[in-house]
Amino acid sequence: MNIPDVQNQEPLVHVKLNRVGITNLSLPIFVQKQLACTQHTVANIDCFVDLPKDKRGINMSRIPEAIHEHILTPLNYNVLDSMALSIMEANEADICQIIFRFPYFLEKEAPISEKKGLVSYDIEFDLTKRKVEMGTDVMILTSDFKLGVGVLATTCCPCSQAISEGGAHNQKCRINIKVLCAPDAWVWIEDLIEVAEKSASCEIYSILKRPDEAFVTNKMNENPRFVEDVTREAYQRLMKIKGIQRYWIEVISDESIHIHKAFARVEGSFQDRRTFGT
Amino acid sequence: MNIPDVQNQEPLVHVKLNRVGITNLSLPIFVQKQLACTQHTVANIDCFVDLPKDKRGINMSRIPEAIHEHILTPLNYNVLDSMALSIMEANEADICQIIFRFPYFLEKEAPISEKKGLVSYDIEFDLTKRKVEMGTDVMILTSDFKLGVGVLATTCCPCSQAISEGGAHNQKCRINIKVLCAPDAWVWIEDLIEVAEKSASCEIYSILKRPDEAFVTNKMNENPRFVEDVTREAYQRLMKIKGIQRYWIEVISDESIHIHKAFARVEGSFQDRRTFGT
Amino acid sequence: MNIPDVQNQEPLVHVKLNRVGITNLSLPIFVQKQLACTQHTVANIDCFVDLPKDKRGINMSRIPEAIHEHILTPLNYNVLDSMALSIMEANEADICQIIFRFPYFLEKEAPISEKKGLVSYDIEFDLTKRKVEMGTDVMILTSDFKLGVGVLATTCCPCSQAISEGGAHNQKCRINIKVLCAPDAWVWIEDLIEVAEKSASCEIYSILKRPDEAFVTNKMNENPRFVEDVTREAYQRLMKIKGIQRYWIEVISDESIHIHKAFARVEGSFQDRRTFGT
Amino acid sequence: MNIPDVQNQEPLVHVKLNRVGITNLSLPIFVQKQLACTQHTVANIDCFVDLPKDKRGINMSRIPEAIHEHILTPLNYNVLDSMALSIMEANEADICQIIFRFPYFLEKEAPISEKKGLVSYDIEFDLTKRKVEMGTDVMILTSDFKLGVGVLATTCCPCSQAISEGGAHNQKCRINIKVLCAPDAWVWIEDLIEVAEKSASCEIYSILKRPDEAFVTNKMNENPRFVEDVTREAYQRLMKIKGIQRYWIEVISDESIHIHKAFARVEGSFQDRRTFGT
Repeated sequence: MNIPDVQNQEPLVHVKLNRVGITNLSLPIFVQKQLACTQHTVANIDCFVDLPKDKRGINMSRIPEAIHEHILTPLNYNVLDSMALSIMEANEADICQIIFRFPYFLEKEAPISEKKGLVSYDIEFDLTKRKVEMGTDVMILTSDFKLGVGVLATTCCPCSQAISEGGAHNQKCRINIKVLCAPDAWVWIEDLIEVAEKSASCEIYSILKRPDEAFVTNKMNENPRFVEDVTREAYQRLMKIKGIQRYWIEVISDESIHIHKAFARVEGSFQDRRTFGT
Repeated sequence: MNIPDVQNQEPLVHVKLNRVGITNLSLPIFVQKQLACTQHTVANIDCFVDLPKDKRGINMSRIPEAIHEHILTPLNYNVLDSMALSIMEANEADICQIIFRFPYFLEKEAPISEKKGLVSYDIEFDLTKRKVEMGTDVMILTSDFKLGVGVLATTCCPCSQAISEGGAHNQKCRINIKVLCAPDAWVWIEDLIEVAEKSASCEIYSILKRPDEAFVTNKMNENPRFVEDVTREAYQRLMKIKGIQRYWIEVISDESIHIHKAFARVEGSFQDRRTFGT
Repeated sequence: MNIPDVQNQEPLVHVKLNRVGITNLSLPIFVQKQLACTQHTVANIDCFVDLPKDKRGINMSRIPEAIHEHILTPLNYNVLDSMALSIMEANEADICQIIFRFPYFLEKEAPISEKKGLVSYDIEFDLTKRKVEMGTDVMILTSDFKLGVGVLATTCCPCSQAISEGGAHNQKCRINIKVLCAPDAWVWIEDLIEVAEKSASCEIYSILKRPDEAFVTNKMNENPRFVEDVTREAYQRLMKIKGIQRYWIEVISDESIHIHKAFARVEGSFQDRRTFGT
Repeated sequence: MNIPDVQNQEPLVHVKLNRVGITNLSLPIFVQKQLACTQHTVANIDCFVDLPKDKRGINMSRIPEAIHEHILTPLNYNVLDSMALSIMEANEADICQIIFRFPYFLEKEAPISEKKGLVSYDIEFDLTKRKVEMGTDVMILTSDFKLGVGVLATTCCPCSQAISEGGAHNQKCRINIKVLCAPDAWVWIEDLIEVAEKSASCEIYSILKRPDEAFVTNKMNENPRFVEDVTREAYQRLMKIKGIQRYWIEVISDESIHIHKAFARVEGSFQDRRTFGT
């Protein structure tokens, strides 16, 4: 059978596209943890390449193929990088971006009863591999790796505490931290989660007995923090982690007494010690 | 052009279908409020008929047509009922169910500063019209009308308050109340919203100045309630509203110290004073 | 420390609650597959008990505790049943309902190239355990187990095909099948998925090369089916599976030429060969 | 009552925050349409200011207050700009960003039967007002206004059409176009929607009778387009609209034969005729 190759036709409009690919591919994966063990989980995957202005379409089926070929290895930076290289080559592309989003679990002990339970976190691996020209005829490949964590925690309002009689309004918040890792740096998921949890009024748990609940309620009331405070606290803790070039921190608090949510964001670079973004 | 009528063909499998129709139609509507005024809003609409076992398909395009014909009138029970009749007739159906879900807004004054702000609620109108046989050759039409409200409010944990020193954990909760109205009864959206808000530890607002925030924080701490308490309180208040035949009450509280949410539900009939559902 | 036991207080309103518990607990699990292997995945878990009218609250922390104690075993009916028994006993409850929802993956070969890829399905395990009185002073325990699958597939419109010149409108659809299993029956996830995929115009894949795409496009055009047809076809195929007492089938097709979605549903009992639901 | 002013305290960590404010405020609004009429709808609103490094918190309640004060006027660029100014002044902020997202409806005639129905679109107004230093002691205010539309349409696969016998796979797609308007330019929602709909294989409708369905199916098959083609076609059409400085176009197609979605994006500047973004 002679099958026409529509993707390699000349396009009608000649403009380079920044990203072409697939979204919403769901696959079981396993992720390398700190202590020589792995975490089985399920990822939602996006993957894109760029498309030059003189080519009509990408070789889209090569993307899920390459992803399938790499998911039998524990997922880490190196595996993503190989995956990206293989997809770039199959598509003769200059850029390949791969994003894996997945729930991740850590065992946490209740503070008094010491009951152990698993707490879930939302993790994002976002790698962009690029061909970069380095003078005449010299091309090198670079990779940007961004690591993101989404952490649920508690905010307790310092204003409400200062002005009311018997306790402040408090609520669940979500802390999102995303960092661009320096080349050759290795930033752990666990370290970013710790930054987020320590920056909140209190961390949250999956199993709490009554003495734990008393402890947690007291701790939260001793650390009243606005979304502004949590964001700044996370910034200060993040500064101390090695290997981070840029950072994005946001905190969203689902205010227990307001219909809206409260929000704060800071982003910047630790290399030149400035915040950026406008 | 002679267009084949595929819908009226004989189906391959002879089984009556309970519901066939459309979901996710979005339209601007306006809804009759209590005080001779109307509320402009946007509805997400589902509409279904039954399909007898000897007919392959329904006349699906008649559904959005009939809905469009009726949305220039303020939406209430009577308009939905006419819509359902028109769709039943076009499809020679025995049943027509129409569900409108829309945000609805009430003005609320802050308790101390008296600042006025709009608070949004999720409303559901769910009407099912049926042909019912009443002895030989006599068919009558009946309509079941269910009214639902979704209300955000605050729960403050009585256990946490009893065992900790300086205030309890509290959080946003969602209270869903749905009722089957008696024939000829007229239950107001506003009445169901009031039941929900009075049953919580405290209601929530869109604008609160600092003296309001102090008031609200104190009120919440004076009314500590579990999801179980809020559900029962709503049951007791709902009993006093005339014209309700059946009810479904559920409360979901997004626990500020736990990763999960707390949930409670009661459903039953006010006619025979029993709860039902197992 | 003497900690007050608020849950065991007398409630202010005396009404039995149908369900009290937790929702949205996320945990890594593994599920027993047909061929002596297991599937690692991540579940979203709801769990409820009933609450008698003379007790203020349930022992909520016992729910995540009991779930954690059981998730190191491959999940199946028996594990859920033990979990429910343990939660009923801890709460002195008459009912315990546990729902696990999780993505599940099957390897599927492309029809011509035979490329293998994983396809994801949404699975639901829904078990309700109850104390039932059997005459004076005799109580027995019964369990209802419902198995649900959510499957993506393709619908191709027979009406559009009959009236147009060069091909019909087609689109992704979702087929949801849920069944109540007979006591001692064992219905496989894989069998329900097969019912869904064979009932659509065509099944879908994660990797298709061009010859596969030609095959799939042709197959879909040879099997034009409305949502009504897919629902009835699934009904007929489901009838042949042993051990099903009740069934709920729904098909939602995201119409490529309409702004709304098309929907069909049938539900009934295979014991007395009647459809039910109104 | 002497109420402590916690927001004006000195923060513990001295870092400027890029954005602090509220998200998820829902309000009924009305929007100015082209022909001297207005569209009632419901907006979901985010609003943020920046926070200098020496101030602990923003005056958050001023945000919903200012929004309420402005929503009785038909929403357009000028109203958003006044709202932003008022919020900047109340917070002594250098930046205020306001985002309104709302469904918007246009009447569309079926191509043959001429039946009229409303089609919904997702609109975004995103305004950022800034103080900018212009030499010593001279500050001016500038405003960036971005307009976004989300449009549902149909893609029909040219590859599938070329290699199969009786018609191609096709499906619903979503086209998102966002543009940065030049100062003093006035870009209409309706113009961006037209760009999106004309760039797809076919537009979609809320009411289609059978002759319309034949017409639409044929039209779609005569215009087979990948996501890449639709993106480039939209780029070319967008170039012809005056007053656009920057643009972001993305197309997501929910492939009827694949489990994933297909995606393409282009972004750039029309001032210097280059695409940007990497």
